[in-house]
Amino acid sequence: ENYAIPEPGPNEVLLKMHSVGICGSDVHYWQHGRIGDFVVKKPMVLGHEASGTVAKVGSMVKHLKPGDRVAIEPGAPRETDEFCKIGRYNLSPSIFFCATPPDDGNLSRFYKHNADFCYKLPDSVTFEEGALIEPLSVGIYACRRGGVSLGNKVLVCGAGPIGLVTLLVAKAMGAAQVVVTDLSAARLSKAKEVGADFTIQVAKESPQEIAGKVEGLLGCKPDVTIECTGAESSIQTGIYATCSGGTVVIVGLGSEMTTIPLVHAASREVDIKGVFRYCNTWPMAISMLASKTLNVKPLVTHRFPLEKAVEAFETSKKGLGLKVMIKCDPNDQNP
Amino acid sequence: ENYAIPEPGPNEVLLKMHSVGICGSDVHYWQHGRIGDFVVKKPMVLGHEASGTVAKVGSMVKHLKPGDRVAIEPGAPRETDEFCKIGRYNLSPSIFFCATPPDDGNLSRFYKHNADFCYKLPDSVTFEEGALIEPLSVGIYACRRGGVSLGNKVLVCGAGPIGLVTLLVAKAMGAAQVVVTDLSAARLSKAKEVGADFTIQVAKESPQEIAGKVEGLLGCKPDVTIECTGAESSIQTGIYATCSGGTVVIVGLGSEMTTIPLVHAASREVDIKGVFRYCNTWPMAISMLASKTLNVKPLVTHRFPLEKAVEAFETSKKGLGLKVMIKCDPNDQNP
Amino acid sequence: ENYAIPEPGPNEVLLKMHSVGICGSDVHYWQHGRIGDFVVKKPMVLGHEASGTVAKVGSMVKHLKPGDRVAIEPGAPRETDEFCKIGRYNLSPSIFFCATPPDDGNLSRFYKHNADFCYKLPDSVTFEEGALIEPLSVGIYACRRGGVSLGNKVLVCGAGPIGLVTLLVAKAMGAAQVVVTDLSAARLSKAKEVGADFTIQVAKESPQEIAGKVEGLLGCKPDVTIECTGAESSIQTGIYATCSGGTVVIVGLGSEMTTIPLVHAASREVDIKGVFRYCNTWPMAISMLASKTLNVKPLVTHRFPLEKAVEAFETSKKGLGLKVMIKCDPNDQNP
Amino acid sequence: ENYAIPEPGPNEVLLKMHSVGICGSDVHYWQHGRIGDFVVKKPMVLGHEASGTVAKVGSMVKHLKPGDRVAIEPGAPRETDEFCKIGRYNLSPSIFFCATPPDDGNLSRFYKHNADFCYKLPDSVTFEEGALIEPLSVGIYACRRGGVSLGNKVLVCGAGPIGLVTLLVAKAMGAAQVVVTDLSAARLSKAKEVGADFTIQVAKESPQEIAGKVEGLLGCKPDVTIECTGAESSIQTGIYATCSGGTVVIVGLGSEMTTIPLVHAASREVDIKGVFRYCNTWPMAISMLASKTLNVKPLVTHRFPLEKAVEAFETSKKGLGLKVMIKCDPNDQNP
Repeated sequence: ENYAIPEPGPNEVLLKMHSVGICGSDVHYWQHGRIGDFVVKKPMVLGHEASGTVAKVGSMVKHLKPGDRVAIEPGAPRETDEFCKIGRYNLSPSIFFCATPPDDGNLSRFYKHNADFCYKLPDSVTFEEGALIEPLSVGIYACRRGGVSLGNKVLVCGAGPIGLVTLLVAKAMGAAQVVVTDLSAARLSKAKEVGADFTIQVAKESPQEIAGKVEGLLGCKPDVTIECTGAESSIQTGIYATCSGGTVVIVGLGSEMTTIPLVHAASREVDIKGVFRYCNTWPMAISMLASKTLNVKPLVTHRFPLEKAVEAFETSKKGLGLKVMIKCDPNDQNP
Repeated sequence: ENYAIPEPGPNEVLLKMHSVGICGSDVHYWQHGRIGDFVVKKPMVLGHEASGTVAKVGSMVKHLKPGDRVAIEPGAPRETDEFCKIGRYNLSPSIFFCATPPDDGNLSRFYKHNADFCYKLPDSVTFEEGALIEPLSVGIYACRRGGVSLGNKVLVCGAGPIGLVTLLVAKAMGAAQVVVTDLSAARLSKAKEVGADFTIQVAKESPQEIAGKVEGLLGCKPDVTIECTGAESSIQTGIYATCSGGTVVIVGLGSEMTTIPLVHAASREVDIKGVFRYCNTWPMAISMLASKTLNVKPLVTHRFPLEKAVEAFETSKKGLGLKVMIKCDPNDQNP
Repeated sequence: ENYAIPEPGPNEVLLKMHSVGICGSDVHYWQHGRIGDFVVKKPMVLGHEASGTVAKVGSMVKHLKPGDRVAIEPGAPRETDEFCKIGRYNLSPSIFFCATPPDDGNLSRFYKHNADFCYKLPDSVTFEEGALIEPLSVGIYACRRGGVSLGNKVLVCGAGPIGLVTLLVAKAMGAAQVVVTDLSAARLSKAKEVGADFTIQVAKESPQEIAGKVEGLLGCKPDVTIECTGAESSIQTGIYATCSGGTVVIVGLGSEMTTIPLVHAASREVDIKGVFRYCNTWPMAISMLASKTLNVKPLVTHRFPLEKAVEAFETSKKGLGLKVMIKCDPNDQNP
Repeated sequence: ENYAIPEPGPNEVLLKMHSVGICGSDVHYWQHGRIGDFVVKKPMVLGHEASGTVAKVGSMVKHLKPGDRVAIEPGAPRETDEFCKIGRYNLSPSIFFCATPPDDGNLSRFYKHNADFCYKLPDSVTFEEGALIEPLSVGIYACRRGGVSLGNKVLVCGAGPIGLVTLLVAKAMGAAQVVVTDLSAARLSKAKEVGADFTIQVAKESPQEIAGKVEGLLGCKPDVTIECTGAESSIQTGIYATCSGGTVVIVGLGSEMTTIPLVHAASREVDIKGVFRYCNTWPMAISMLASKTLNVKPLVTHRFPLEKAVEAFETSKKGLGLKVMIKCDPNDQNP
């Protein structure tokens, strides 16, 4: 569809989009029109894993200029409320977020965004790496909330794209060993490839049984579990598996009410912490990508030009490969 | 019953007991012989809220001498394991704990204990205050785990002895306002007396409704909720009530599996943290009692000499008053 | 002098000023025209401890309306830079700050300010309490940076207005005992009045000697020292006095280079932390004042109408009393 | 010299020593007989970077058995004091520490040690790696105190053994870029080899000039500086160089009194934190070595059998190579 090229406000920049990754939530909105309380009520542009080039800057913008290559943080607070002031701006109830209704995403030729949430990419970081900072941020923030630190043993439940970036980040933070669980052997094989020390293919075992297997592989209970599936049984596994004094981070979201062994968690001081998207991850992610501390390039398995967006969504929906990139610039389809 | 007066080991002290408070768990073991996995298999001495006077010191003990008045921390690690080394000795699996089977408690004339977990009381702190450090420690540790800090709004669910000490501690830490909930009007009235800003008598309202009332009274959602009842509905209330980015501390323990609105907690980053007893609370509790920062004296409502211990347990079981003290020294029944 | 009544921008409010406290830095700019690198180059309005009433709101302002009584946080970031995003906006290099050159203060009849940094006062908090949140914030932030917590022993060096609010805050956070040092017996007597447990009048003793006295009074070394004088010898005292693993907070600023017993600090893990003004203190300070957790009213010892501002500054300069308030509203000179 | 083979106490193990690294402090005691307040008053066995095999276990020891290969943590608290209880046992004033007078070290054929501070090595970790955990622990603890985290820019002052392990650890924790400074080109070249992103050879530049160079290389000020030289000018450099809100960790110790730009540090909230040895590092270091997350093997440049200990000390004193290992087992001189 054709939209008019928007005019940036004083604190905004207009971006010529380059690469936009497709996320499970995009596919979900595309198919179902809603996720929980977020309902699509009018036609909405999808896309929130994106990078592009500054085409025009608003009157107040100082740190960017036309031609700058940038990664886009899709959540940009509208108000400087108390959540913003304490550094947890992701919790601000009035935040703008790309492709969460009613806010439009950035899967388009041109897109304008709050300039403070556009981050200049050094030459050594590609547009696709810039776009991948979004899913990477989920992993960074989850590991940070879990307090992953040097020498830790970590359990990651789920080997989809989020599980894999979490694995990558946990290793980059110095985790000694990471176990990954999933239902799919193919996904676990990918996890092995990108660095999992151990994998467990889950079938019909009880949560306690899986927890026992995790302990068997590691020689001890993991310090941190990062649950990326949202399945009740997997959340239970995380609680049983984690060592006393450790943390379970809830990344995957399942049904509204969840039955968990709360006494088991509480009396062993296993903390249960959720994540709502992320905050304060872009600058350090860029540093890491620039210094080659982290390699996210293998995550991109498919590329489609913007004209073939429907085909891209179909591919993503089928779960073929890991990350599907849509290339918005007809003159530059490079990574 | 008559036991032989025990001989202290090299790192132990023999104590002539003075005041021992009765805790709900004591009553429970007395009645049912078990709490969860802890089963009484042989006759066991009850009592773990206690203070006394040093009668004899082991050969290696340097910081105490006969005649010193001390408060007893009932949990004393048996091994210097990794939990001890990082300062979370309460999580040490082999810890000795008074009156948790198979370990005997200290409701007796004489009792020996690890000297490092006996703390000298200054003259200005009474034996009963010394004994009350144990329940007080639950409140201190819960507030600390919850991160209660200056200016916070706090919700305390439950107005029993633990709820009340939690209320006292939250206020001492600078909480601006504390709301207390309970089923019983009498208990809430006691909460008001010792400092609650607001109370809510819970009847048949849904967790969301109670959460709404809490927000109505405070003008905002509380920063921290400390749940002291163990009731599933109350835990749910705590999650709905707490502000985004806040913490729910699980003190009360209920049934093994608990159904909670986990997505609601996780997506608002409301952390769920349990407590297992406490650690590192005695020295600072003594400082607070010595400086009169905190007044726990009103908590003691009944006193019985050791000979009338059964009557004391009956009183405690009936829920009359708040804290029943057993006086073990026939020559000194003072507070 | 007469300025035109300013027009608020979209995110600003116009305030009719009510009470403005005089701070040492105001007097210093008035007398010397500079503090360190901050130099007054053109006539500048002083004042940054202030409260007033909203007269007009900018087009984007939602949380305030004309007639609202507000306290003003004088530092308001101009840009959403990385310091703001992580919740340490006070470190933002481009921050606007009242009465720090070249930014004007708010000692005037009317004044416009960033609406997000104006906080509505409940009826139970007076305008003068609202103005006092500024110095109070220094104490809150210093205690927070020092990690003051329940049962702590605290040393406060200096019994001027900042030392006194620090003392008040430390007590409100649950400090068991606070020692205050100063050269002046009169100031120490005021410290005693507002809650100091012990005071030490410093004369010619060495830093080690004073540290020894502090330990003697408390029976142990303090957990936290908050240094409010900027004197080299007092900073040294703080380091010698603080217990291993404790913290010295540097609030008072002295000469550029300072000689300290760094090995003594480092090898006992006594952390040295500075404060730059404060951040995230207004909302909780208002909660505390509203709930009467803290009483700052005794700090105001003098009041002058705006017309007598010179007389007010002379009074403040002479060090008479504690806090001098200037009343900007000719029709309401109440607290 | 010949000592009698000691008999382990109930909580001790007797070790047949294998590899002992020589540390600068060993050389210093050997040459000067004192370091600061620690004075050698009687013949003392040196050595505190060590590993060996359990030969005999005390009556209470459960987690080790004869034949277990172990790394030795040289500091083992004698009392369970408050420092131990909060997890900062390194600050315990009565701690036993190998080769710190009057405590003997472990450079001998047989040596007994507190069993709780001997850690079993998996087969995949060599004895020399086990011995290197001691210097590695300094780096781990310094990085932990500095809060080094994913994506950080780090400045390490000094490229001696401690600077190098700090560099290795900072990278393992996810630091994006590390700059190392030193006077010696040869040492800096070694730093480059083991992973430094940038090096600066310091000559006559002022601290501000070096700080400027650091910022130039990184494109921003570092988040954390870890000072390993103890030189006053280098400490000053660390303060000037570190970004607002960052941390300078003081590892190297110089003269008693140090002149620093304290106002510059305090008003930018650059925290200054020391380290006293380390605590809670062995288990996670073993995890890291076992999982090959960290490679310390290149640090060992010389090996001598125990009979040639004097030659080993001479080599170490001359500063040839990095780490000199003494091999105590005549039948096994392998790494």
